[in-house]
Amino acid sequence: MSTRFRQVALIGKYHAAGAAAASSRAALEDIAQFLVSEGCDVAIEHDTASATGIIGYKVLDVPSIGDQCDLGLVVGGDGTMLGIGRQLARFGVPLIGINQGRLGFITDIRLESYRDVLGPMLRGDHEEDRRSLILAQVMRDGQCVFKAQAMNDVVVNRGATSGMVELRVEVDGHFVANQRADGLIVATPTGSTAYALSAGGPLLHPGNPAWALVPIAPHTLSNRPIVIPDSVEIAIELVAGRDASANFDMQSLASLLHGDRILVKRSQHQVRFLHPRGWSYYDTLRRKMHWNEGGS
Amino acid sequence: MSTRFRQVALIGKYHAAGAAAASSRAALEDIAQFLVSEGCDVAIEHDTASATGIIGYKVLDVPSIGDQCDLGLVVGGDGTMLGIGRQLARFGVPLIGINQGRLGFITDIRLESYRDVLGPMLRGDHEEDRRSLILAQVMRDGQCVFKAQAMNDVVVNRGATSGMVELRVEVDGHFVANQRADGLIVATPTGSTAYALSAGGPLLHPGNPAWALVPIAPHTLSNRPIVIPDSVEIAIELVAGRDASANFDMQSLASLLHGDRILVKRSQHQVRFLHPRGWSYYDTLRRKMHWNEGGS
Amino acid sequence: MSTRFRQVALIGKYHAAGAAAASSRAALEDIAQFLVSEGCDVAIEHDTASATGIIGYKVLDVPSIGDQCDLGLVVGGDGTMLGIGRQLARFGVPLIGINQGRLGFITDIRLESYRDVLGPMLRGDHEEDRRSLILAQVMRDGQCVFKAQAMNDVVVNRGATSGMVELRVEVDGHFVANQRADGLIVATPTGSTAYALSAGGPLLHPGNPAWALVPIAPHTLSNRPIVIPDSVEIAIELVAGRDASANFDMQSLASLLHGDRILVKRSQHQVRFLHPRGWSYYDTLRRKMHWNEGGS
Amino acid sequence: MSTRFRQVALIGKYHAAGAAAASSRAALEDIAQFLVSEGCDVAIEHDTASATGIIGYKVLDVPSIGDQCDLGLVVGGDGTMLGIGRQLARFGVPLIGINQGRLGFITDIRLESYRDVLGPMLRGDHEEDRRSLILAQVMRDGQCVFKAQAMNDVVVNRGATSGMVELRVEVDGHFVANQRADGLIVATPTGSTAYALSAGGPLLHPGNPAWALVPIAPHTLSNRPIVIPDSVEIAIELVAGRDASANFDMQSLASLLHGDRILVKRSQHQVRFLHPRGWSYYDTLRRKMHWNEGGS
Repeated sequence: MSTRFRQVALIGKYHAAGAAAASSRAALEDIAQFLVSEGCDVAIEHDTASATGIIGYKVLDVPSIGDQCDLGLVVGGDGTMLGIGRQLARFGVPLIGINQGRLGFITDIRLESYRDVLGPMLRGDHEEDRRSLILAQVMRDGQCVFKAQAMNDVVVNRGATSGMVELRVEVDGHFVANQRADGLIVATPTGSTAYALSAGGPLLHPGNPAWALVPIAPHTLSNRPIVIPDSVEIAIELVAGRDASANFDMQSLASLLHGDRILVKRSQHQVRFLHPRGWSYYDTLRRKMHWNEGGS
Repeated sequence: MSTRFRQVALIGKYHAAGAAAASSRAALEDIAQFLVSEGCDVAIEHDTASATGIIGYKVLDVPSIGDQCDLGLVVGGDGTMLGIGRQLARFGVPLIGINQGRLGFITDIRLESYRDVLGPMLRGDHEEDRRSLILAQVMRDGQCVFKAQAMNDVVVNRGATSGMVELRVEVDGHFVANQRADGLIVATPTGSTAYALSAGGPLLHPGNPAWALVPIAPHTLSNRPIVIPDSVEIAIELVAGRDASANFDMQSLASLLHGDRILVKRSQHQVRFLHPRGWSYYDTLRRKMHWNEGGS
Repeated sequence: MSTRFRQVALIGKYHAAGAAAASSRAALEDIAQFLVSEGCDVAIEHDTASATGIIGYKVLDVPSIGDQCDLGLVVGGDGTMLGIGRQLARFGVPLIGINQGRLGFITDIRLESYRDVLGPMLRGDHEEDRRSLILAQVMRDGQCVFKAQAMNDVVVNRGATSGMVELRVEVDGHFVANQRADGLIVATPTGSTAYALSAGGPLLHPGNPAWALVPIAPHTLSNRPIVIPDSVEIAIELVAGRDASANFDMQSLASLLHGDRILVKRSQHQVRFLHPRGWSYYDTLRRKMHWNEGGS
Repeated sequence: MSTRFRQVALIGKYHAAGAAAASSRAALEDIAQFLVSEGCDVAIEHDTASATGIIGYKVLDVPSIGDQCDLGLVVGGDGTMLGIGRQLARFGVPLIGINQGRLGFITDIRLESYRDVLGPMLRGDHEEDRRSLILAQVMRDGQCVFKAQAMNDVVVNRGATSGMVELRVEVDGHFVANQRADGLIVATPTGSTAYALSAGGPLLHPGNPAWALVPIAPHTLSNRPIVIPDSVEIAIELVAGRDASANFDMQSLASLLHGDRILVKRSQHQVRFLHPRGWSYYDTLRRKMHWNEGGS
């Protein structure tokens, strides 16, 4: 029985600087050879190839990976995985994450054990975990002045030395509230374990087609996090506050103007993560949240 | 144009004692006459009729209302509405709530203005708001020893003078966590504004097919509320703790034994609430949560 | 029996622009005449006099009020009271707050009823409520580059479009923690009802010689607010993060550098607020926090 | 240079059952011999002697230890330490805690390293950490029906199958609030890391002469924890709710009646804990709270 994924792209910490990238060269070459031995055609993502100096394989940029590959194999952390996931979502290419350091929420295969784990997965024995994406834009005077996708969250927040912002929130045209706060987070289930959690938001199982709206340090104590279906369109208008910014997975537009409207809707695409058979989101959560470790 | 709801049942605070019930007699009679004038056949719920002494109308018990009526009109608060909703869910009879006092989350028509509001609704001009129900049971040695439906929540909690309970939580057979806490709440969107909110849970829009698992005063600070799809089956096993109890919308089984398993799944039925055209859940939330009232 | 406060300074919203300031002229003149009738010598604070155009009274700048007056009478909100309180603390001049709008935490006499209330207070029948002040500075390469007093709080926080800051916290030279968060608040009891409350901090009764250290959206969920005696010296060092700022009652130093140390200690001065006899901090809290108003 | 503590009492997990107690016999005998070698007269606490069967030493009950000893050396966990601390507080005998398992908040010397650590401490080289005690009682119809000391907390809470309690809180005769909640905790700094923390309370450094009032799952979201000076007297009256109980460090009075008043004041005694030179409360906090361990 052979691989179900003929064309496989290998992707490292493609934004990493020389030293860090080079240190992962050995790991990437080892994995590449393993993939070949499993019957795959291996391509190296362009920036990964440049940073590590790996040669002997086809080199593809990310859109070409989207066009030509059946699987993306990411060697890095959650940040790398989210970055490449955003770009590959529209192509429907699934991703597997191998982690050199501490396991993440979505990169859950240890480098040391990748051989035992990858084999069955390549032959089709895996769990699929689809994650939604946000399509967000900033509208100013009726024009879109900034647009990006986000896998974690859309954040509107105040400037460093200014006070609260006031944000008018609407859902599908229904007025929700004027929130005075440090900011407001719209988090996907993927993002619910990131910034939104620090701000007091709930954990959202990825099986929920939903978003959490989580205010950051809200002035009104009853402004609690609210979970809404992700089939809606959210509008967040800056009513008051200086130096506010909009951040879509940390892609930022600073210096928002009063009247700017941040529009949030679900992307038509999803990111596909593959996990080893038997994978459970709850196991990941338990490990990352340090539940059941005893402790005070 | 005439009523779409021919057979209409009128339901008061049917568990209320004499004086309180009697005081609502005038209101009920007024509404009954209005319904007749709108072309409805009016029945009075049996206990409501007994408590108020209203005569001149057909009297039906709740199952007969389910069998024979097209609409239930509740004059009372959210508690009355939830109680009757649980019983009528399997019949699919929709409910409208009229409130004599302060408006609730689901009883949102003021007694003073019911004539203006009910007219169009009876002619089919309304919004429908479907709410899910929990079907919960306590299993002991493989036998079901307690079973009930819940519209708000299933709560497993500790005894008054004992310490924490330890609860083992599984979702669809996957181990989630051993939680040491005062207790654990499984809340529907309807229940997310009740006890779960006090315990730190998020607000869930009723459009989410989801539950919030909210620990009460958890020993481990990272045991945060988690929102999961309501298509799963949850099992909560009492591992440690004395005098624990299971409470399904306050229907209780006390003195749980170690090894007792509380099983939670979604009922196949839903409760149907009707609201005036233009109704928005966010308006209700804003009013009940006292958002945008200024104030510190 | 006559006033115990011979020299009384009247202070309006002294930073307010023309229109707002002018509108309070009538109130200030009314109060001035009342004070004269009670046997006081009245002075008008310099900026208040300029903004309102009140004539016929001695005009004093704030330091001169500190030197020459026995009492400051503030007509404005909590912000005005805190601003003038910071400046008068070193002189020991007590303050009374009269509020034209909604009562604040410390300005608790209504303009409409000031005559009835002020009379007994001027004759010595009052409660005294002393509040501590923070003396804070930013040290860079061993030099103080910014220094200010704060009645509410010292806040170190991140830039608008950057991620978390990492802050190393020490108390009296003891290492407390490296906190990764949006920021950290050191709040006085006075400030515990302001920004620190939004960030999840506890209420501190002003009778506590204590500060609350409240992290803003901390990455580690167990980084809970901690209350420490205000006799210590706190050092907060910026370890990581771009565009961070230090804010002392909103007096800001932006663009902190790594290695900058924010030092926080208690001022040797206190602000003295006078309240009507029978005043209770708990009454203020109950009113401002909307406790016991019923409501969900 | 010789011991400053001539008469030393050794106290084990004196409430432990046979097996657990016996397992600590070797440790206790080893420590006893060490103490003798350091010039101490060693006594064994009565129940410890019974449970372990240690012979060859003077045996004293707890009040006699209070009368005759200069130091108590506890081999156990925080629970044992708190239990004996409550009893010895009125005698002023200081306590040192040696822990066989995971270190606690107040038992911070590892069994394996006790020799190196205890030597200098016996010669007077130590830090002293004084902890306040609560004196609490339940008043019914003007009579005290239950009275106990507490080192951690006083908790008034609801029954297992009943709804919220309503509690009227007064401080020094001033009305604070009517709280509807699962219950209310009055925590000392010592107790601030226990149940109160799970309920959302702040950490209180032991240097604060203060208590935290922490509501458990309060109905009103603005009912936030409040820190008050411990020089006051608190009265908590049960206004509504069935099967409520009062718990003073888990010493309980069940079935409270409406009108029962729980009175809380500071004991005139303090517990004295001794720690090794260089001890810092912040180190303990960092270890127990798992700060700075990386983490999610």
